[in-house]
Order: sequence, then C-alpha cells, then structure tokens
Amino acid sequence: MKKFKAGLFGLGVVGSGVYKVLQQNKKYGISIEKIAVKNIHKKREIKLSDGILTSKSEDILENSELDIIIELINDPEEAFYIVKRAFEKGKSVVSANKKMVALYHKEILELREKHGVKFFYEGAVCGSVPILRLLDQHFKSDQIKSIKAIANGTCNFILSKMVGENQDYDTALKEAQDLGFAELDPYSDVSGEDTRFKLSIMIYHAFGIFVHPNEIPLQGINYLNKKIIDFAQKHGLKLKLVGEALLLNGEIKAKVEPQLVNDRHDFYNIENEYNGILVDAEFSGEQFVKGKGAGSFPTALAVLSNLKDLKYDLAIARISSNDDKIHSKNSAEEIYFISGFDRDFDFDEINILSNEDGYIIAKGYFQQFDNLKKTIPNLYWVRIPQNILKEIRKQEAMA
Amino acid sequence: MKKFKAGLFGLGVVGSGVYKVLQQNKKYGISIEKIAVKNIHKKREIKLSDGILTSKSEDILENSELDIIIELINDPEEAFYIVKRAFEKGKSVVSANKKMVALYHKEILELREKHGVKFFYEGAVCGSVPILRLLDQHFKSDQIKSIKAIANGTCNFILSKMVGENQDYDTALKEAQDLGFAELDPYSDVSGEDTRFKLSIMIYHAFGIFVHPNEIPLQGINYLNKKIIDFAQKHGLKLKLVGEALLLNGEIKAKVEPQLVNDRHDFYNIENEYNGILVDAEFSGEQFVKGKGAGSFPTALAVLSNLKDLKYDLAIARISSNDDKIHSKNSAEEIYFISGFDRDFDFDEINILSNEDGYIIAKGYFQQFDNLKKTIPNLYWVRIPQNILKEIRKQEAMA
Repeated sequence: MKKFKAGLFGLGVVGSGVYKVLQQNKKYGISIEKIAVKNIHKKREIKLSDGILTSKSEDILENSELDIIIELINDPEEAFYIVKRAFEKGKSVVSANKKMVALYHKEILELREKHGVKFFYEGAVCGSVPILRLLDQHFKSDQIKSIKAIANGTCNFILSKMVGENQDYDTALKEAQDLGFAELDPYSDVSGEDTRFKLSIMIYHAFGIFVHPNEIPLQGINYLNKKIIDFAQKHGLKLKLVGEALLLNGEIKAKVEPQLVNDRHDFYNIENEYNGILVDAEFSGEQFVKGKGAGSFPTALAVLSNLKDLKYDLAIARISSNDDKIHSKNSAEEIYFISGFDRDFDFDEINILSNEDGYIIAKGYFQQFDNLKKTIPNLYWVRIPQNILKEIRKQEAMA
Repeated sequence: MKKFKAGLFGLGVVGSGVYKVLQQNKKYGISIEKIAVKNIHKKREIKLSDGILTSKSEDILENSELDIIIELINDPEEAFYIVKRAFEKGKSVVSANKKMVALYHKEILELREKHGVKFFYEGAVCGSVPILRLLDQHFKSDQIKSIKAIANGTCNFILSKMVGENQDYDTALKEAQDLGFAELDPYSDVSGEDTRFKLSIMIYHAFGIFVHPNEIPLQGINYLNKKIIDFAQKHGLKLKLVGEALLLNGEIKAKVEPQLVNDRHDFYNIENEYNGILVDAEFSGEQFVKGKGAGSFPTALAVLSNLKDLKYDLAIARISSNDDKIHSKNSAEEIYFISGFDRDFDFDEINILSNEDGYIIAKGYFQQFDNLKKTIPNLYWVRIPQNILKEIRKQEAMA
C-alpha cells in the first residue's frame, strides 16, 4: 500500500497526540515529514526528528512531496488561509478546527469541490465521537428529525462539579483548566459559543443547510447562580448545556441553552469531559452516542480515522441543494426556570407558572428572554422539559 | 448518478420495510425489480407491483440486469447458498442475516475476496446501531481493549419488565412476542444464542480474528428465578444480558452472561427493545452507542445505509492476519450471584463469599459453574461487578 507523507500545522495538545501515534505505529502508513509551528525554539516535551520543525508555512504548502495536510492550529483565519492554499496546491486536508469550519463551512466545501480535493474534520466536533461520520454515512439514508448534543467538555465538567459536588463556578472552572479540558479562552466554552460552532457544523451534516453560528440563539452557563443548582439538587436533576436543532414543518430551529435532565434521560450519565449526541430519525428512531469530547488522544483518533478516510472516496458532506428546508431563528415555546433578575423586576410580559424565592418558572420563547436580558444583564433561563415539570408538580402535591 | 437495480430475497419484517422505503423514496436511486419468497400466493399487507414476486431464486440470481442482491431470509443455510451463488455471478450482497454471517463468516469473506464483490451486513448486528461501521472505520485507527453489548432486544425487554414492572418471565416473553420484538424462535433469544451470534461477528470487526459462536461460553436468561429479581430490586440494580469480548495479554476472552448494573452504568438506561454497545479503546477511551436493536424500519435503515456503501470502496472487514491475537475459552475470575440450585447441594469447590436464603455470592470462573450445571440443570449465575458488591456491602454495614 502507498505510504502517505503528511505536513502538520500546529503541535499543541491534539497535534502532539497525532504525531506521537503516527511515530509509534508504522502500520498507519503515514509519516509526518514537516511540522509548522509559531516558535521553533519553544521547549517541547515531545521527541522530534531533527529539522522537522519550521516556522514557514511555505515549507509545507510548497512541498510537492507531501500528499496530505493536517491542520491543527488555533487561529481560524490563519487556518482558513492554510486550507485554501493547500487546496490550490491540490492537497487534501484533515482539520480539527471547529471555529474555522463553522465560520467558513460553505466557502471551504465549495473550494474543496472546485479543486477536486478531499477535506475531513471529524475532530472538529466532539473529539472522539464519530458524529459526522454517522450523519454522513449512516443517517444519510434516514430523515433526521432532531439532533441534540452535549458538545462542550468544559461546560459539562463545570456543571458536573457544581451540581454533583457543590463546587462553585470559579473553583470548577479552575479545575477544568488545570486538567486541560478547558480551551485556551474559557469565554468561548462557558458562553456556549463553542457548542454553537459544533452545532452549526452538525446542522449541515444532519439537514444539508448551512446555518452560520451567529444565526443560532445562544445562552451559556456563565450566568448561572446558586438558585438553579439548589433547584436541580432538590429534585434529583442534572444540568446540561445542550445545543439542539429540530426540523419542524420544513424549518430548522436551533439554539444553545442549559437544560435540566432527569435520570431516565440519556444525557444524565454524561459526566465531566464526556460529550453525547442524541439523534432522532424517521426510520431508526432515537440513537445515542457518547464518548470523550476532548483531549489529546481522543481527538487524535478522530484525526487518524480521517487520515484513513482520505484513501476512500467517501461521500462526506457533499454540497446539496436542500430547497425544502429553511432556517428559522424563532424557537418554539418552552418552559423555563428563570433567575438572575432583580427582586423588583416587573415580569408583566411573561406567562409565569410559578413565582418562587429568587426564581420563576415561566412559559415563553428564548427570544423573549434574550430581549429582557438587555435590561437585566444577569438574567438566565434554563429549560425544564414538560415531563420533568409534571413530575415536580406531582412530588409537590404529594408532599 | 447510476440507478441500481436490486433483487430481494425475503419479504418479512425487515424485507417489507426496505421495500416500502425504496418504493416511496426515489432519491435512493435503487429499485427492487424482483422479490423471491417461499409462497407467492400468501396474503400480504404490502402493496406490490404485478409480477414482482417469484418463488424461484434463479429469477434473481440468473438475471444479469440486477446489480445488487438484498438477502433478508431466515434460514442461514439457504441464505449462505444464495450469497455464494450471487458472488459467483459477480453480484454484491447486502444481508441482515446474523446467523448466516456468524456461522459462515470466514468462508463468506474469503469468497467475497475471491470473486471481487462487496458484502455488507450492518443490519445483522443490533438493528439500527451502526456498530460494524464504527468498528471498521472509526476504531480501525485505534486499539480496542474491550467490547460489551446488550445485543438482544427480546432479552432486554423481558428483563426490563421483570425487574422494572414485576412481571414474571412467561408474561414478559408473551408481551415481547405480541409486540413483534421476539424472534420466530424465542429459544435463540432467551438462551443467549442470538447475542452470541452478534458477539462473534463483532469480535472479528473489533479484533480481526474469527471466533465461531460455539466457542463462546454462553448463559441466557431462561433459568433466572425470583431470587435474582428480588436481589436486583432490593439494591436498585438492573439486570442485563451482556455479550462481551476483552483483549487481555494478546488473548481474546469472550462470553455471554447476565450481569447486574447500577444507575451510573451506560447500560442502566437501555430499556426494552433498545440495544447498546460500549467500546473501550486505547486512544478514544470509552465510547457508547445506543439505538433500536430490532424492528422493521430500524433494521431497514441499516440495510439502506449499506446499499449506499456499495457505491464506495469502503474497507469493511478486510481479511487480515492477526497472528498477535488468539482466542481463549478461559474466562477471567468474577464475582457471581448464584441461584437455581437445590438447597442441599454441596458447594465445596466454590469460593463462597456469602450464603443466603436460596442464593450464594461467590467468586469463580464461568467454566466452573457451567460444569456444575451438568448436575444442577437449573443453576444460573449473574455477574456482580466488583464496585456493585462493594456498594452493597457498604449499604449492609450501615443498615
């Protein structure tokens, strides 16, 4: 079998993992010949061949001996530039850069078609969890009705610690960073932005339409206070940041928001750095997949699988015209736990189901609360699925 | 794109599902031109084109216009004959016949290579759950350490009803049959044989070696009595039939047996007809996938995905020489709940941890209990994972 020669951009957490595995296992048939890094003099724990590092991207992009580019840097603009240049040179690319893919999804896939190259990015979404592969291949023959995901390990870790171990937000965030789960910029994680990048990418693979991340309503976990933690603990519930997209009458409705789950929900046992995705489809029904969403080797595995995919003519994410589906920014009405407001605030516009000490339970639309947040900056809302509210009411009636 | 013409063998639960979907959705680009059934005069609920049915397999196998054979009959010998004949005629085959694949796995794959055709069988293992796809593609770049599966919907349904709703075995089995989850022959389900077929197939895709089903130690759920149900309920545990294969020092150890799981285990929320598979691998860590394990449309979806796969040169289950791994019939020592024995029986040979009313908890080997079963026909053993026993001991100490 032909041995592939690859050029690698970036030698961070994932890049080091990919390099180590390929070095130690000749069976992959891929050798990394050149690695472009910002600083070639930086001290690194990884053992490297002499002269393999370069600070000039041309050393990889202009090298006609390299068959594959592995792009694993942080900066999305720079990454996009590298991918474009690689395509122009007829080189296929494997990337794990969720931000770049989410921001330039359509452009990249069009360029890919134009230049007749391949482009895989499983590692960009939920680390080791092969969700893009499943959407592209397995579910391609089905009709997806919804996709719901816990896609950010940092948020999930923090929420696990807060609800499960009574840690406060700052302590939990610090621990996530110490353990290396948190991204370089915690804001992107805790604001839900990172989940939104991944959701945006998954929407294309699930429904065939491009929805820019900025078009997806977003609420993170960075405003949650003790009220919701107490509420979750009191009722034996867990708190999860969920990115979801539903197909309703030809409209794709997507959003990212915290949600309460009970012990019969597949998300209940997703703890710490794990990610999980629930797909509901016409023929197969509900399907659930769970695995490590971050980390050096889990994400490296996704990259390695994609390197193997390059050898096959897989129909990954062809650009299709899906005139039958459109994106709608209007979310459906839901029941929410709402807190973070001033005691004196007037909730006239909201359909309040119950008004408690420091929080309300109300029926409404994401957009409604998002508007209120302009004047109540610490406001937050956590979705309570209908069945959970029913159970709580039942418990209360019995008490 | 080229339109494929297919011949279908069998028009049962799955066959009807596949036919209906392909009829109603021209987008698949596959038309079923001929269907071979045992009895062409049988009254069927499905609407069929005139003259599409035939009772002669030659009408499909000898028809040079058909590109693909979809094999969905029950009888494994007959199915094997059809597959062989199809290969000889240069036709690729999609099958969902677990028994045929498990019994003739090596022969079929060798014939496939010999005739240069394709052969896919995702529907044979766990219905809609794309486990073979994941093992062949995603985990192929990893090193699998273990695979554990709830692979039989009938057993899972019965155990859900027994532990969760206090139904007795016969009532639960009857309900499973009424709902159409149970296979034609319930023995194959409840004895664990069906799980063993699927495990045998998965072992090849996970570890690259062929282990014949008969080589895998087996215990089903058909001997379980009230004692274990009471025990599970008392401790808030659930009972699952698990097929598992572990790689330990180059040896593959496989078995099928009932096991207790607690509420933090991924198997805990797999209820009724759902299947679930837990894969532990070197790089990706633990990964879990869950979905409908049986039924017309879920299994049809697996078949449809495979029909799409036929268009690509996927490296599904290449025959590889894995000289580094061998199969060992000797299971590791475990802790078991043991019951179904005569009160006077002498357990001298067994390392008993506690002796209760009508059951014992003991440490031992599957083979040891399997031997004892020759003289105590109703004996059964249910694995208690070490962490669960620890928790039970703790509860007891506190009580």
